[in-house]
Formats: sequence, C-alpha cells, structure tokens
Amino acid sequence: MGKDLSQFIRNEAFLNKVVSAEEAASWIEDGMNLGMSGFTLFGEPKEFPLALSKRGEKENFKVNLYTGASLGPTADQSMAEAGIINLRVPYQGNATMRGKINAGEMYYIDQHLSHVAEEVRKGTLGKIDYAIIEAAAITEDGCIIPTGSVGNSPIFVEKAENVIIELNTTAPSAYEGLHDIYVLPEQGDRREIPLYKTGDRIGEIGIKVDPAKVKGIVLSEQPDIPSPLFEPNEETQQIANNLLDFFAKEVEAGKLPSSLAPLQSGVGSVANAVLNGMKTSQFKDIEVYSEVLQDGVFDLIDAGVVKFASATAFSLSKKRVDSLADDLEKYKDKIVFRPQEISNHPELIRRLGIISFNTALEVDIYGNVNSTHVSGTKVMNGIGGSGDFARNARITIFVTPSLAKNGAISAIVPFVSHIDHTEHDVDVIVTEQGYADLRGLPPVKRAEKLIEIAHPTYRPQLRAYFEEAKEKVGGQTPHILEKAFSFHTSLKEKGTMLFQENEVTN
Amino acid sequence: MGKDLSQFIRNEAFLNKVVSAEEAASWIEDGMNLGMSGFTLFGEPKEFPLALSKRGEKENFKVNLYTGASLGPTADQSMAEAGIINLRVPYQGNATMRGKINAGEMYYIDQHLSHVAEEVRKGTLGKIDYAIIEAAAITEDGCIIPTGSVGNSPIFVEKAENVIIELNTTAPSAYEGLHDIYVLPEQGDRREIPLYKTGDRIGEIGIKVDPAKVKGIVLSEQPDIPSPLFEPNEETQQIANNLLDFFAKEVEAGKLPSSLAPLQSGVGSVANAVLNGMKTSQFKDIEVYSEVLQDGVFDLIDAGVVKFASATAFSLSKKRVDSLADDLEKYKDKIVFRPQEISNHPELIRRLGIISFNTALEVDIYGNVNSTHVSGTKVMNGIGGSGDFARNARITIFVTPSLAKNGAISAIVPFVSHIDHTEHDVDVIVTEQGYADLRGLPPVKRAEKLIEIAHPTYRPQLRAYFEEAKEKVGGQTPHILEKAFSFHTSLKEKGTMLFQENEVTN
Ligand SMILES: CC(C)(COP(=O)(O)OP(=O)(O)OC[C@H]1O[C@@H](n2cnc3c(N)ncnc32)[C@H](O)[C@@H]1OP(=O)(O)O)[C@@H](O)C(=O)NCCC(=O)NCCS
Ligand SMILES: CC(C)(COP(=O)(O)OP(=O)(O)OC[C@H]1O[C@@H](n2cnc3c(N)ncnc32)[C@H](O)[C@@H]1OP(=O)(O)O)[C@@H](O)C(=O)NCCC(=O)NCCS
Repeated sequence: MGKDLSQFIRNEAFLNKVVSAEEAASWIEDGMNLGMSGFTLFGEPKEFPLALSKRGEKENFKVNLYTGASLGPTADQSMAEAGIINLRVPYQGNATMRGKINAGEMYYIDQHLSHVAEEVRKGTLGKIDYAIIEAAAITEDGCIIPTGSVGNSPIFVEKAENVIIELNTTAPSAYEGLHDIYVLPEQGDRREIPLYKTGDRIGEIGIKVDPAKVKGIVLSEQPDIPSPLFEPNEETQQIANNLLDFFAKEVEAGKLPSSLAPLQSGVGSVANAVLNGMKTSQFKDIEVYSEVLQDGVFDLIDAGVVKFASATAFSLSKKRVDSLADDLEKYKDKIVFRPQEISNHPELIRRLGIISFNTALEVDIYGNVNSTHVSGTKVMNGIGGSGDFARNARITIFVTPSLAKNGAISAIVPFVSHIDHTEHDVDVIVTEQGYADLRGLPPVKRAEKLIEIAHPTYRPQLRAYFEEAKEKVGGQTPHILEKAFSFHTSLKEKGTMLFQENEVTN
Repeated sequence: MGKDLSQFIRNEAFLNKVVSAEEAASWIEDGMNLGMSGFTLFGEPKEFPLALSKRGEKENFKVNLYTGASLGPTADQSMAEAGIINLRVPYQGNATMRGKINAGEMYYIDQHLSHVAEEVRKGTLGKIDYAIIEAAAITEDGCIIPTGSVGNSPIFVEKAENVIIELNTTAPSAYEGLHDIYVLPEQGDRREIPLYKTGDRIGEIGIKVDPAKVKGIVLSEQPDIPSPLFEPNEETQQIANNLLDFFAKEVEAGKLPSSLAPLQSGVGSVANAVLNGMKTSQFKDIEVYSEVLQDGVFDLIDAGVVKFASATAFSLSKKRVDSLADDLEKYKDKIVFRPQEISNHPELIRRLGIISFNTALEVDIYGNVNSTHVSGTKVMNGIGGSGDFARNARITIFVTPSLAKNGAISAIVPFVSHIDHTEHDVDVIVTEQGYADLRGLPPVKRAEKLIEIAHPTYRPQLRAYFEEAKEKVGGQTPHILEKAFSFHTSLKEKGTMLFQENEVTN
C-alpha cells in the first residue's frame, strides 16, 4: 500500500497502530464477544474477519458475533464456514450461515435492531471484548468516520474494552460528513432525542474513540459489497401498483398529503418495485426515514419525488456501488446515516408518524405476520427492523406475493407458523391480488378481507377453514386448532399446501 | 339533588346545560360512535349508560363504544345486556360482554391502549359523535376535572362533535389537582413529550372543552366502583417471591440499583401479591410508572418503599374506595394521573427504562406469550397496555401460575394458541416454580429454562415434545406442527392437557 496514511489517519496518536490483519486476528480468544460494524453488507470490516476465519481453520476457538445487521461473504459467510461462531446477534441473511443455524451448529438470537444497543448497555450480551469497525478515516480529533453504514458501531466502540479499526483506503472520502452519530446515555438519565424532522442533524460526523482503547489499525482496500439488483417483474410490479393505489386512496380521502408521511421500506424486490413505481406517481417531496437505502432512492431524488432520506445503511447493486463516490458528493445534503438505535427508535417512529412497509413470509387470516421462519422452524433471515417500525408506525404495511414456490405455498394461511408481528400491530396487507385494509376491523372481518387477497387457487380452502371455525368453534378469533397448521402439514407431506379436493375442483 | 351546583360547575357557560340522563340518552342515534371515559371501572359515567341501556330495551339501535379500558356493571355490562353495542374498542373485562363477543353477537377490537388516541386522530375509528365524560367539577376556565381515571377522555373531548358531561357530585373534591392532562398534536407536527421523571407534570389539571360542544350535563351521585380484593394465596405469594428474588439478583449483580427502575405492574392477584411482598423487601424509593394503581400502592407509599406513582387510573377494593377522599388528600403530592397515551407511550417507556410485569394466560417453550385468548379462540379481556410496556420496557416480565383449572391446563405449552407478545419482546417468565431469565438466550436454550418452570406434572411431556422436535425437525425454533397444539386438543377432547402416559407415570 503506497498510500500516504496521514491522509486517512489524521491524528498522530493513531499513526503507529497499524498492524496486519493476521496480527489483529491473533488477539481474539475463545469465547470473546466481538462487536462488528456492518449492515446489509455495507460498512463491514473484511480483512479482519477473513484473517480470523483463516486462523479458525487451524485453531479451535469460537466467538460471539454482534453486528448492526447482515454481513457478507468475507464476514458472515467465511466465519460461518470456518465454524468459529458460537452465537450470532441480531440479524443475518447469508445462506451458509442460515444453514449452520438451522442445523444447530451455531446459535442465533433474532433481535429487534433497535434493541441491540440497549442490550449492550444493559450487559445482556456480556461485555464487548473487541469492537471491529470499518473506517473511511480517523479525524484530527480522533473520530472514526464510518463507511457505508453506522449500525451499532457507536455503542460497540463506547462499550468495548479494545477497538480494532479496519481502515479502508478505497472508501469514498465523501463518506465524511454523511453520518450523524448520536449516542444515548443510560436509561434513567435521558432527555428526549432532539430529532423532529427526517433531516435534522443532532450528533457528530464520526465516532469518538479513546486512542488508548484502539489496539490496532488494519488496512484494507476491499471495495463495498454489492447486493443483487432487483428488477421488477410482473408480480412485484403488481404488488407495487396495489400499494401505490392504497396510498393514492389515502390521499384522496384526505388522510395523507401528497407528500405522504416519512416512509420506511424494507429491502428486496417488492420494495424496489414500489420505489420504482413512485418515480412516475403523483407523490412529491417525500421524506424517507428508513433503515436501508436501496438503488431506487437516488433515482427518486433525481425525479424530485424524494427530498430527503435518512437511514443507517446502504444496500446497493453493482451499478450504484461503482458510482457511489460521485453519488455521495451529489446527494450529500439529501442523505444522512444514523446509528440503528436512532433510525429505528420508537420515540422517533411514533413522533414522525412513519409509514412502514416490509415483506412478510406468510400472513394468517387474522393479520398475524411471520417474517422469519419457514414452516415455523427454519429461520430465513430475521425480524430485522420490521418490528421496530411495525410496532410504532402510523400505518404498518406488509407486502408479499400471494404464492411462493410455484404455487406450492400460499402466503395467506389459517395460522402462521411463527408470529413476529401480531394482529394488534398490522394495518394493511398487500399482495399482487390487491390490498386488505385491516384498520378498524375486528378479526372476523379481517379474515374476509384477507381471504380476498389470497391467490384464487387457495381461497376456497381458506374460506372452508374460516367457515368451519366460525361454525364449530366460534369466539373472537375462530380457529380449529387441529387444522390450524393443515396447510403446512400438507406441504410437508404432499409437497403442496393445496388440498386434493381443490386441486380437482379448481 | 339539593346540592349547590355552582360549587361543581364553576363556569357560567355550563350552568344551564343540566339535563336528565334520559334526555341525554335520547340524543344518541343508531350507528353513532361514543367515546366514553373510564378505565378499570374507575372514572366512567354511570347514569348515562344506564339510561341508554334502558332505552335500548325498547328501541332498536346500536352504537360503537370506545373507552379508556374496561368499564363496569352500569356501562359495559348493562349495555352488553341491552344488546346495544355493535363494536367495542379497545379493552373490556366483563363476563357478560365477553360472552356476547365470543358468541359473535358484538364486535370487539382488542387494541394496544397507547394506540387508541392515535387511531382516533387518524380517523380509523370514524368520527366521535359523542364524548361522555365523568367529571368531578367544571372549573372557572371551562376545564373538565376527571374522576378516578383519565384514559382517552382528552382525545375524545378534543375530537368529539358533542360532549356530555356526567357530573358526579359525590366524587372526592381532591380529584382536582390529581391529573396532568397533556395532549399530543398531529403526527408530523410533534416535538418531544417533555417528561423525564415519573413525577414530572407537563400539562393541565383538567380537560379544556369548548362550551359550545357541551350538549348536556347529567348529574350523578353514583360512587366509584370497587374491584375484587386480591389477597395473596400460597401460589401467588410464591410467584411474587420468585419475582422479588429475580429483582434481588439483579441488584446484587449491580444491574439495578436498590430503587430498581420505574415499575409497571399489571392488575390482579399476582401483581397485588408482588406489591404486598415489596412492603418488607430490601427495595426502597421505588418509582411507579404504570397504567393502573391498585390498593397496594398506598401501603407502599406509607412504608417508604414507593416514593412516587404515575398512572392513568385506579383499580381499588371496597376498603380503599371508602377511604379514597382522605387518601387523595394524603397522597396528593405522590400521585399523578395521565392520559393513557402518556402513561403507555413508547417514547416514555423507553426513555425512563421501565421494568414491566404483566400476567400471561399461557407461554410457549420459546417465550411467546398469550395474554388474551383461551384456546386461541375465545377472548378473555384483551391485551390492554401489556404490549405497550412489553415492547419498550427495560425488562419485560410475564408472570403466571404454572397450572390453571386445577391442573387440567399447563400455562407452559409447546405453541401458544394466540400470540400477543413475541419471543423478540419477552425477557423473563415467572411461575410459582421459579423464574426463567431468557435474556441473551437463543430459542433452544430458552426452551430448557422454560420447561424447568413448568409444573412438574407437565415437564415430561413438554420435554418429550421439545426433544422430538429437535431430533425430527430441528431448525432455529424446533417444532412439530402436527403436535404443536396437542396440549390444547387433549384439553378439548379429554378435559385435560395431561397425556395418558404421564398421568400413569407421574
Ligand atoms: C420475508 C423475506 C425473507 C422476503 O424476502 P424477499 O427476498 O423480499 O422475498 P422472496 O419472495 O424472494 O422470498 C425469499 C425466499 O423465501 C421463500 N418464501 C417466501 N414465502 C415463503 C413461505 N411462506 N414459506 C416458505 N418459503 C417462502 C421464497 O420462495 C424465496 O425462496 P428462495 O430464496 O429459495 O427463492 C425478507 O423480506 C426478510 O427477511 N424480512 C424480514 C426482515 C425485514 O423485514 N427487514 C426489512 C426491514 S428493516
Ligand atoms: C391474563 C389475565 C386474564 C389473567 O388474569 P388474573 O385474574 O390475573 O389471573 P387468573 O389466574 O385468575 O386467571 C383468570 C382466568 O383465566 C383462566 N386461565 C388462566 N390461564 C388459562 C389458560 N392457559 N387457559 C385457559 N384459561 C386460563 C383462569 O382459570 C381464570 O379463570 P376463571 O376466571 O374461570 O377462574 C389478565 O391478567 C389479563 O387480562 N391480562 C391481559 C391484559 C393485561 O396484561 N393488562 C395489564 C397491564 S396493562
């Protein structure tokens, strides 16, 4: 690395701390708790976890890995492959790691993203032995400038015994100034979080760190990790249209202005299709107060649809990763990244009156939502921030295609096999069949609406369940517990949730 | 009524509005939305709903009834008996009404108590045609002084087209000054809620009302309605001891000070036993930031254990109802009543770092909690504020006896038949068998702890389920969906959740 380090490490107390990734990795002991930067593959250290994984191939040790959210191939994947993780908190989205978790080869706590910092403060997750933070620079006054996410880095740095900085000398210098680092004091000593508009800046541009705690600085030239590009297909486009239709009706009814309300959107194909659809919609001057910014947000800023976006991380495709340095300069005054405790904080979500939409795996006829577990047992990714937003949003929306696995699975079922969001929290469900506005409806009326937006193939057997439950059992929330999971057991036994009689008659 | 009304109605604009309850009841039309004061039987109008129910015996009409929380014999019960309720929101606890709801004879939306005011603001529940509010007085500047609860009265009065005041001339005059009425503006226009300590006063002592909206004042001499007195028995005492033991361990470990943290407690027998147990415990100077104040709180103030208590309503036994006027004078500077939107607000619960404990109906082996539905179908009371606290508390605790119905029911089951609080939100479960501290544990380790605090009779069949699920299915959260409700179906078919083989071998 022929680069002049003093350009990146602008405080002398840090200059003599540069070590190799291997040396830094050698400091880690069996049973340690590591707090790592990183969120939706952005802003994570790469050289350090690779070196640690490599060490793990020869040595026998395990660590507990805490992060912002999901990490990529150099961290979650390589560490899972090396078998060096005992416990992973709070979110992952990696196929290899998921496999290990579901095989019982490592532990996983699927935790609300806004809760992690509080749990660290309270000591529930033990002390943080090492914080390992990717940085774009270290400033004159000893602040770490994060890269493409903030996540839980500020609390990890504050509470860690030791800090390792992975300085990425290829990170766009325009990362500096993007972040707004605000850390809460202990509970009981708190005032308000003084954020009243999505664009308010309330903290510092970097994470203050005591140089004495910084045990080493690892250098990296690894680029940001792109996510798959989600192009809308017919189905996601139809879901997006239905959601936009719902928004339009709310505006027509005078319940929302044409700028809607600050918007949180999940990541993935549907979210991207919605953002795409908004480009040519009637909505203007929208503010985004979300967790993650996908490609679409830049286009929407260009189109004048979005006027400001607050989040804790990027999740960008290859194309946008390549232009990121320029984009950061261009959109600097329209974007801010905050700690996930702030982007997902109940105080702010309720105060700002966020409209939230996230993707569900399955939804039951009364509006309970499963975001995490396939057939109730195998975890997919995790609840992420969906609960933080769902619980406190002005309007809580979940979207899902009505079918999965070529029709073998109905996303609307009698009883979800795992509940992440309860009937008390869910307002609107959108599929490609339409939307079900559940607000102000008791359970039996919600079921009517939800059966309507199931796929037509599954409507008869959903209706049959609901009618039988009303007739034979009744109650506020009619169910026949013996048959509540009949869709899931049919899937297991016959490879499809579709019952024989329906297959014939439909 | 020979009383001098000017003593109660201290603003002239209101003096000529007195009407009979019958007349006021005659104004109500089929399909109207009524927003009524009242919470845990305190502070509800009594003459008006009785008159309306009487009218309902002869006339055919139905109304939608929105309140703070549960009402008593003169309101929920008489209106349910008269069959004049179409929809009830957000909470009830009356046997007659529960029967009607579960028979499908009226609708019920079981809603988080902190959400109701937002739903009214957003118009989800339609416009409020009439607010009917029990008052202890109307002040010189035209404020309604509430009685033994605040609930949702402020938002009902603000949004209602018409207001009926039920002036209770027997209400203790010391109610005046007890309340702290703070109403939030629309979402998007909000600043912080400026409450930083449980005792902060941030609003007015009464509910400001435009006299032009007040269509009538009904007079009442009906006393406050007492709740049953819950004397600790061996079982609730043991649950209380276990919970106090948990608190003591937290203090020992330096995780909590001896004043603990502001406490929210549910109502009922266990809550009362805990409060009772605290009288002689090591804990001092505790602050209460809760929803409801039961008898115990006065004794704890006397004992120096509690130094301040904030809530939205009383729930008192006959003994304490009788001495209430004196008690209010005595404890005036130690108690404050707030709107339920404030007592249960996520911003404040998170900021203050509340410790919350509420009663569960059933809990599953992974820590999901059912607070509302017996066998998943018949609603008991409702979620009340338990979700508001559970979701945002510093420590979220649920308590329950390990058995119900003389042992025919285990409160710990493989899969709860309804989920009100998810695994992501639940920290500690306490039964008379002990406590399970689930914090920092992945699902399979939670199950180990939870099976330990099930009743010994049920442990073998819980363990058998868990072991079979791990072996045959595995995954992050092992379940055998075909058998997930086997406890419940056994109860239905054989009258007990206990399986034959266990009955024999235990
Ligand atoms: C729910 C979630 C998994 C959907 O992901 P997605 O990529 O948008 O949607 P997809 O339709 O591609 O579904 C992903 C996979 O789940 C499968 N799936 C979907 N519904 C299913 C169901 N009911 N049962 C079983 N599998 C299902 C799909 O077939 C697909 O499988 P594949 O990867 O083998 O092709 C994802 O949004 C998630 O993890 N959400 C929880 C966290 C969250 O909401 N975060 C954002 C807010 S902060
Ligand atoms: C859960 C709740 C019903 C328990 O009430 P409680 O009076 O403290 O407890 P009890 O043990 O007396 O139980 C009440 C009834 O439920 C029955 N019950 C308890 N567990 C049961 C179970 N798992 N299945 C079926 N019935 C059960 C009891 O047998 C009892 O029946 P009975 O009235 O016929 O005797 C009550 O606390 C509640 O409604 N909670 C939800 C709202 C809330 O938490 N509010 C407070 C915070 S704001």
